[in-house]
Amino acid sequence: MKQFHAYQQLKAQAESLQQTHLNDLFTQNPERFAQFHVQMPGAMLDFSKQKITEEVLDGLVSMAEEANLQQWIERLLDGDELNHTEGRKAWHTALRDVSNPNPEVAEQWEKMAYIVDELHQKQMRGYSGKAITDVVNIGVGGSDLGPLMVTHALEMQQNSNSPDIHFVSTLDGRQLQSILAKLNPETTLFIVASKSFGTIDTLSLAETAKAWMLSSCGVETSAMRHFIGVSANPQKMTEWGILPQMQLAFWDWVGGRFSLWSSIGLTIAIQMGMDGFKQMLAGAHEVDMHFKNTPFKENIPALIGLLGVWNTNFLDLAGQAILPYDSRLKYFAGYLEQLEMESNGKHTKRNGEFVDYRTCPILWGEVGPNAQHAFYQLLHQGTERVMSDFILFKEGQGSGERATFHQNLNIANCLAQSRAMMVGQESDDPHKHYPGNQVSNTLLMTRVDAHHLGMLVAMYEHKVFTQSVIWNINPFDQWGVELGKKIALSILECIDERNATQLDQSTQGILQQIWEHNA
Amino acid sequence: MKQFHAYQQLKAQAESLQQTHLNDLFTQNPERFAQFHVQMPGAMLDFSKQKITEEVLDGLVSMAEEANLQQWIERLLDGDELNHTEGRKAWHTALRDVSNPNPEVAEQWEKMAYIVDELHQKQMRGYSGKAITDVVNIGVGGSDLGPLMVTHALEMQQNSNSPDIHFVSTLDGRQLQSILAKLNPETTLFIVASKSFGTIDTLSLAETAKAWMLSSCGVETSAMRHFIGVSANPQKMTEWGILPQMQLAFWDWVGGRFSLWSSIGLTIAIQMGMDGFKQMLAGAHEVDMHFKNTPFKENIPALIGLLGVWNTNFLDLAGQAILPYDSRLKYFAGYLEQLEMESNGKHTKRNGEFVDYRTCPILWGEVGPNAQHAFYQLLHQGTERVMSDFILFKEGQGSGERATFHQNLNIANCLAQSRAMMVGQESDDPHKHYPGNQVSNTLLMTRVDAHHLGMLVAMYEHKVFTQSVIWNINPFDQWGVELGKKIALSILECIDERNATQLDQSTQGILQQIWEHNA
Repeated sequence: MKQFHAYQQLKAQAESLQQTHLNDLFTQNPERFAQFHVQMPGAMLDFSKQKITEEVLDGLVSMAEEANLQQWIERLLDGDELNHTEGRKAWHTALRDVSNPNPEVAEQWEKMAYIVDELHQKQMRGYSGKAITDVVNIGVGGSDLGPLMVTHALEMQQNSNSPDIHFVSTLDGRQLQSILAKLNPETTLFIVASKSFGTIDTLSLAETAKAWMLSSCGVETSAMRHFIGVSANPQKMTEWGILPQMQLAFWDWVGGRFSLWSSIGLTIAIQMGMDGFKQMLAGAHEVDMHFKNTPFKENIPALIGLLGVWNTNFLDLAGQAILPYDSRLKYFAGYLEQLEMESNGKHTKRNGEFVDYRTCPILWGEVGPNAQHAFYQLLHQGTERVMSDFILFKEGQGSGERATFHQNLNIANCLAQSRAMMVGQESDDPHKHYPGNQVSNTLLMTRVDAHHLGMLVAMYEHKVFTQSVIWNINPFDQWGVELGKKIALSILECIDERNATQLDQSTQGILQQIWEHNA
Repeated sequence: MKQFHAYQQLKAQAESLQQTHLNDLFTQNPERFAQFHVQMPGAMLDFSKQKITEEVLDGLVSMAEEANLQQWIERLLDGDELNHTEGRKAWHTALRDVSNPNPEVAEQWEKMAYIVDELHQKQMRGYSGKAITDVVNIGVGGSDLGPLMVTHALEMQQNSNSPDIHFVSTLDGRQLQSILAKLNPETTLFIVASKSFGTIDTLSLAETAKAWMLSSCGVETSAMRHFIGVSANPQKMTEWGILPQMQLAFWDWVGGRFSLWSSIGLTIAIQMGMDGFKQMLAGAHEVDMHFKNTPFKENIPALIGLLGVWNTNFLDLAGQAILPYDSRLKYFAGYLEQLEMESNGKHTKRNGEFVDYRTCPILWGEVGPNAQHAFYQLLHQGTERVMSDFILFKEGQGSGERATFHQNLNIANCLAQSRAMMVGQESDDPHKHYPGNQVSNTLLMTRVDAHHLGMLVAMYEHKVFTQSVIWNINPFDQWGVELGKKIALSILECIDERNATQLDQSTQGILQQIWEHNA
């Protein structure tokens, strides 16, 4: 990153700011909030609790300009082949232009709408003629995390005709076993979601589900009425036995961790109806337009990205905490763990050189009020300096005195924590000393609904993209996960043959103990 | 930590080992696994994939000796007042000596057993005379995470007479609202779990639950048949209205994050029966005895702790990933986030000086096979160097061809990942270059059941304790969470009064936007 003209100056500013307490930045400047917050309809980013000055912001923006961020954004939205190491576009933004849809995309919406209608009208029936009551999504990674996160968040707003929705993702089979024990095969529909339709995790679970279905209905053709496939590989779906009318498509230009906007989001459409699904898309599209058309100093995703670079590469902060103050966002941090760490957990620049700077930090999180009773101790008094994103919604859910009290209590807790992290507290008792000086963003949004969730996810996608441009890495590949898959298959062979002598001592030793125990 | 005699030598060894690839340590020494694994009944720790030598291990053990770890362990188990900043013992180990119980503890077991029996025999009835079918645990932090983690893990093994168990923890009220929508007040029992019985999160939810119950049954005395209290403060339980026969106790010498072994574990006892609950206690007690009686070089929790210190303070690794290869351990990483970061996320030594070394790292995790499709990219090719704990079980769940396949696939994936992280892979394509050299432990245990879960949790408790002794901090207080609570109450007052002028600009600005929107 040393090539950036602003680099040396930002380094110097970082050193100087390390001597200044965040609290002093507020007392020195009564206009700090006015100066360091920006908004778009439905969202406001308060970054006044970041350790920055106007000069730092100028330096960060100049880096973004020097890195041609604006052109990169336009190339992203235009569907250029940005994923150069896989020779693909990364065109998930084309999935969410609801008013001007790509024809391929619109065709899939029609197929999704048909399935959703059939389910809502109880016209989709299993092999014995009973209507489907339960839908099980089998998928992992991008085929699981987005739909799981969104359907959990919107559960209380679901279409009253929606069947119950379940998620199975783990290849150990125990989750599936536990869910199947509660379901009736006659009324259960499986969605097998896999971009490649070659992921062993998903296919092994789908095989087990098929065996369960077959043991009930006896005949393959009947069983296959209970399986929808969602994939970018129709041939493999057909080979596996998915009926043509039960196949939904997406394309190699949609990355797995960006696929909730495609047919992979079928469970969201089933839960909310197609209208709800499209509201989510439209929310994301608004953020796409904001990202493209807003100067960086007022551009929410670009700012979140640049502030992260500042914290990571100039202030040397260790980790990123994601703290949504709404229990409906239970799975949001897990969603971002994939989005951020799989996208930017890279050490190779676009041109093949290795980086000599830090890229994606460790990101983790939890619903804020719960995390207060779990790991906030470390945020307030630990030795690791962490950057935090607080996410808060203006509107509560429900009405009446109790709902209002919970909502106010929640707001008070969110604001109290970012304030406590900033101000700290002196004390004569060193055990009660709080250094404060911990930086945070607060993202204030209107309410938890499909539209605002779409916005929220798109903001973090574009944060990640912004950082990838500064770090000069390709955020759309994931070569780092291939080696483990390859070794897993070779170890699976060793297990079948009960012979692991070509492996290292540790792997051999563990296998030996397992074999001896299970002999 | 510079006072340790071994410090300088360990520093020098760390520098030298930074030049050596982990893979070379294996090729240089064919006895590496034999040398660096230890066991106890039911568990084996393979630490051969740590970047250590015999000399490093000797140095770490000498630090433990110099820090008087053995005496600290004995004082812990004897119930000395180790939590000196709160003037309390930290005597959770006294809760799990099943064969030689403390009389106070045994008395609570009898009360728990009575409640469990009444529920299992459908003799506990609600206000209208119907048997209880659903139990809702209201609690947060230590009153939530342990019972949630264990009951989720053991769900498939539950007593067939157990009612359904639900957990509510988040003060925003939305989780509670969503669960209540599915329940019938006549057949619902609430457990209000709070050590102080003063936690506003828990009490506000309990008030809402009480209002829901009252709106159904109309009379307070009837409503209170539906509330059990679990607390170390009986007076507050009584004041809140918990009936005497519905009160379970524990004591100030049980820290919140160590309380699943006490009456706070009531949901575990309901789910598994008292026998199952006591099996969990007995498993933990075995680890207590192992921790006390085993030389450090063969002592699993002491070794996990010392290796963590090595990685954090000598190799400067950034974070700790927790990767259980079993979907039933879904909530285990979340449990450890509290246990480790709330215990050791400290910057003040026991004597009140501030530390000049790192203490608890950022800890996060996910069920391993799922994390492979989420954040493993960063572990394999990111710039952050992370230490990982793989947790694997010898026995699968269920029988038959499909169950065996899933179990083998799961084992193969676990071993493949620790191997890939160790060996890495050269490639002409720099995007496909894996540096390897990432350290890990593998903890191999027999099966997921109450006994082995008790062991597992106790191992990590004692890991944390070991580290606290080396770092010279008190792991049993949590002063860092007090300031936020205090500020939250003052902001709640500001919200009630619609006046925040004494707060910082940022907090004011956010409140203003919320007020304007909701006006």
